[in-house]
Amino acid sequence: MYDCIIIGTGAAGVSAALTLRARGKNFLFLGNPELSSKINAAEKISNYPGLCEVSGAQLKEAFSSQLKAAGIEITPAQVTGVYDMGGHIGVLCGQQSYEAKSVILATGVEAVKPVAGELEYLGRGVSYCATCDGMLYKGKKIAVVCTSKSMEEEAEYLASLASEVYFVPLYKDAELKGENVHYIKDMPQAIEGKMRVERLVFRNSAIDVDGIFMLKSSMAPSALVPGLKSEGGHVLTDRQMRTNINGVFAAGDCTGKPYQYAKAVGEGNIAAHTVCEFLAERK
Amino acid sequence: MYDCIIIGTGAAGVSAALTLRARGKNFLFLGNPELSSKINAAEKISNYPGLCEVSGAQLKEAFSSQLKAAGIEITPAQVTGVYDMGGHIGVLCGQQSYEAKSVILATGVEAVKPVAGELEYLGRGVSYCATCDGMLYKGKKIAVVCTSKSMEEEAEYLASLASEVYFVPLYKDAELKGENVHYIKDMPQAIEGKMRVERLVFRNSAIDVDGIFMLKSSMAPSALVPGLKSEGGHVLTDRQMRTNINGVFAAGDCTGKPYQYAKAVGEGNIAAHTVCEFLAERK
Repeated sequence: MYDCIIIGTGAAGVSAALTLRARGKNFLFLGNPELSSKINAAEKISNYPGLCEVSGAQLKEAFSSQLKAAGIEITPAQVTGVYDMGGHIGVLCGQQSYEAKSVILATGVEAVKPVAGELEYLGRGVSYCATCDGMLYKGKKIAVVCTSKSMEEEAEYLASLASEVYFVPLYKDAELKGENVHYIKDMPQAIEGKMRVERLVFRNSAIDVDGIFMLKSSMAPSALVPGLKSEGGHVLTDRQMRTNINGVFAAGDCTGKPYQYAKAVGEGNIAAHTVCEFLAERK
Repeated sequence: MYDCIIIGTGAAGVSAALTLRARGKNFLFLGNPELSSKINAAEKISNYPGLCEVSGAQLKEAFSSQLKAAGIEITPAQVTGVYDMGGHIGVLCGQQSYEAKSVILATGVEAVKPVAGELEYLGRGVSYCATCDGMLYKGKKIAVVCTSKSMEEEAEYLASLASEVYFVPLYKDAELKGENVHYIKDMPQAIEGKMRVERLVFRNSAIDVDGIFMLKSSMAPSALVPGLKSEGGHVLTDRQMRTNINGVFAAGDCTGKPYQYAKAVGEGNIAAHTVCEFLAERK
């Protein structure tokens, strides 16, 4: 069992990983090996102490080489659930599962807000994970809402199973192809149904479907972690970055504004130190 | 009147200054132009994200050149008091005073704990400021406890006024000279008296004095700011770095552990953002 699993490879996750390594902890670092896509997009960062007028790409490169020098590897994974198992934490990534004494959520913020009904119908026709739930929709009619090009491969897998795919890319230059793939260029507004999902409603139309996949590069922590307390879309923590769930900590943008690199690395550092205290108390 | 005064030039103060500059605020940055003496002392920092295996001296150099590039100047000052003036904050540095709409305390932690009785007798024979209170002890017998070589100049000034100076340097290579200067190489244990200071007690001796100067390179925020809530020697703040006093914020080591650069820059960043919100609400 790992001492800790860090979920998310943005600035907060990187900071937590460097500190856990410095403290000699046995941890797993899950997320995108290319780090945060947001870091890469920043043109110029003027207020990150120690690096003068650095570009996002340069900061990302600095983080990457620092992780490499410290011998820290990133395990590529899309986390689909985090569960309090009473004494340890279970982390699901599709079919793969991991166990740890503690977890640091450093998942960032999802720029795309949940569609009305999304959280209510989660597990009743709404899914975040093609690998986990794809087979349930073999030969059925589904909608696939995709927020990032990096998730298109999962949409392809779904198209190989479903009879009809209504594909809703929320980015430019989507390339998904297939005879059963129908593009919809509109913003989803609401998910409707009775016991289960029946319909996805857009601004100008609606489609009847058996299921809806919301493929996001990062997920709202409240959707990932059953029972996690949040407010206004942000995980609630105390100043030591403890959440309401024993053994689950959070850091970075997912805990709230300001959405800043300095704030994220600070909270990652604090969370890692609190994890060390937590581990010492467990013994 | 300044938008903000940042007190302290360690990592938290530097981070706050860079962000206030990025946000176009009119602020004063008070403290040691050589930045934190602690930064300089760090041999190797392994977990500051973005700078791989950097030495304290290198990090200090990076901070200094970044401040210079951003056109941020440090005003050398020893702050002796911060006062809530009801609507604005007054900052005293000996005889000099400044006014601001807000203050960020980034004063670090004083490694030397207060001596028993120190806070009780503050203003009744105990002083932190040679410039402010020196004249009160002209021709009198005083003890001067000095925690840092950088404060020796103040001790020299006091020796020019007092009849007898019992000099207690808490560092090596003290150089204060004078016919009326008597060195004591022992740790102060307690300050005693009735209405006012009468005696400074050491492990192995005690001396009768009219006053005691505690010359420290940084002061406990609770001694600087009347009414400031603290706990275990640390300023109490919420997650937005607000203290219990309207317009007074805090960041870095003075708010508690972990004493880490990443944590300090994170809190400096958050405090600066909260100051911006505070200023917007004032308008």
